[in-house]
Amino acid sequence: MIAVVSLNPALDVTHHVDGVDWAGVNRPVRVTWAPGGKGVNVARTLHALGTEARLLGLAGGSTGEALRAGLRASGVPAVVTEIAGETRRTFAVVDTRRAEVAIFNEPGPPVSTGEYARFLDAYRMALGHSRAVVLSGSLPSALPPDTYAELIAMAMLAGVPALLDTSGAALLPGVAAGPAVVKPNLPELATAVGRPLDGHDLSAVLSAASELRDQGSDAVIVSMGPAGLLAVTSDGAWLAVPQPVAGNPTGAGDAVVAGLARGLALGWPWPERLRHAAALGSATAAAPSAGEFRHADYVSALTDVQLTYVGTA
Amino acid sequence: MIAVVSLNPALDVTHHVDGVDWAGVNRPVRVTWAPGGKGVNVARTLHALGTEARLLGLAGGSTGEALRAGLRASGVPAVVTEIAGETRRTFAVVDTRRAEVAIFNEPGPPVSTGEYARFLDAYRMALGHSRAVVLSGSLPSALPPDTYAELIAMAMLAGVPALLDTSGAALLPGVAAGPAVVKPNLPELATAVGRPLDGHDLSAVLSAASELRDQGSDAVIVSMGPAGLLAVTSDGAWLAVPQPVAGNPTGAGDAVVAGLARGLALGWPWPERLRHAAALGSATAAAPSAGEFRHADYVSALTDVQLTYVGTA
Repeated sequence: MIAVVSLNPALDVTHHVDGVDWAGVNRPVRVTWAPGGKGVNVARTLHALGTEARLLGLAGGSTGEALRAGLRASGVPAVVTEIAGETRRTFAVVDTRRAEVAIFNEPGPPVSTGEYARFLDAYRMALGHSRAVVLSGSLPSALPPDTYAELIAMAMLAGVPALLDTSGAALLPGVAAGPAVVKPNLPELATAVGRPLDGHDLSAVLSAASELRDQGSDAVIVSMGPAGLLAVTSDGAWLAVPQPVAGNPTGAGDAVVAGLARGLALGWPWPERLRHAAALGSATAAAPSAGEFRHADYVSALTDVQLTYVGTA
Repeated sequence: MIAVVSLNPALDVTHHVDGVDWAGVNRPVRVTWAPGGKGVNVARTLHALGTEARLLGLAGGSTGEALRAGLRASGVPAVVTEIAGETRRTFAVVDTRRAEVAIFNEPGPPVSTGEYARFLDAYRMALGHSRAVVLSGSLPSALPPDTYAELIAMAMLAGVPALLDTSGAALLPGVAAGPAVVKPNLPELATAVGRPLDGHDLSAVLSAASELRDQGSDAVIVSMGPAGLLAVTSDGAWLAVPQPVAGNPTGAGDAVVAGLARGLALGWPWPERLRHAAALGSATAAAPSAGEFRHADYVSALTDVQLTYVGTA
């Protein structure tokens, strides 16, 4: 089982509008909502792959209730700790005429010490049955930046390898705690090392990734969108580049995390993990709906991934 | 007691953003939500006036749960019939830098025959204790345009005078059912009579209001914003003009309806009803928060309303 931690999930509400009046009244032609947040996407991809996954999250209020209902409907097993605060919404306005998307991300709810302690109980319990744990997404502002560091330390004590995918103030303390894998994207890596990075300058990205790895993570996988994955591991460094696709790149990074987590849980060698992770990201980017993929695309992308050994760590 | 029917209530979600990026990711500085829809506003204003009111509505899903929670918090007594569908949201993005507001109104949920029958039971029960009934706002698309006509006929059978405030296809059948009062605004009156109306041409508005009254309503009150209320009744026609105010006009029309409904329930003479309704509308427009008013503003506006007799009906 793979445990996927989502401390700041959201209810993603999407309004499709044919030509938005940004100073007037609009009647969306289509309204959809679904559980969201990076951890939820990772758990959903693992579930779609037939991999046993369990989402561990916090949710509260009526938005939290909608989130739980959406998770039940999706079939993703979840242990959601109840909080008194109201789960956040994200709100996307898709202007179908202008092909523009405006996104409004509400801040997360408060989390009390007692609520977080109850989450920790659920987390500790899940670790006893997990072969890997994924820590994904932002932290609610109520939790300190070393929250992921604490969760990684608990996982290590339980002998469970951890994969970290976060940004901002939570990233560096998490890396210092020694996870098995950390997966920044290019802007997140640039922020972590404190200098701009050009995705076309592979050696610069490679040395930045090595620098981040030196801070504690066993492996650093940099996701670079269509340019693929750059992996710096104890077994060497690789570049995995999928075939170009047209579609909806939203959620492709989370699909990569799901692929990496499954490879980690199964103890696959790095080239195999990277090939599957890149293929999953590519198949997800090829699907028109954010965060979904067709199995046929995944299987065909697997044979198309270009894997290159680019050096020792 | 005044019964206020709200068949298509909403959860009004507002995001305050300091300079919106309409093609990117925004982080609202302030997020609020509250029960909304015209009937909810009317019931809230009556409640703030100390008038016993009961909201009769339909709500479902997690958004419906948030609506119920908001009603409980506001102290407005409500009998909300549960539906299987999900209550709609309205979403307002307030751009505090540009002083622009974009509003996104979700369509209403489906309403089954059985659910509507349960609402009718609650409505019938409430009529037994009501001195007036307010029918306010749009109909869910699942209900036929003569829904308000049926509710007005039931009220008349029970000896309860009805006040109708709606637009579109529901307006004319409702008027034909013979309510005590109908309150269109100027665009709604223009649509009802099928010709454009200029608010500065009072005699044109007067004859249009008389025309609408001829279709069945005992009285027609046209709300014209800062230009006041034009009333065509069996006792004669009046113009009630409040002092100009600066503030937030959202909800002022619903405050006018609340004022008219209270006067109707108490059997006040028309000049008194109009003075109070215009003063409530003005006090609500003067308040910075939509749909709220300060009692001091209401009291001072009462003495400032200019009431003019403009003819026999």
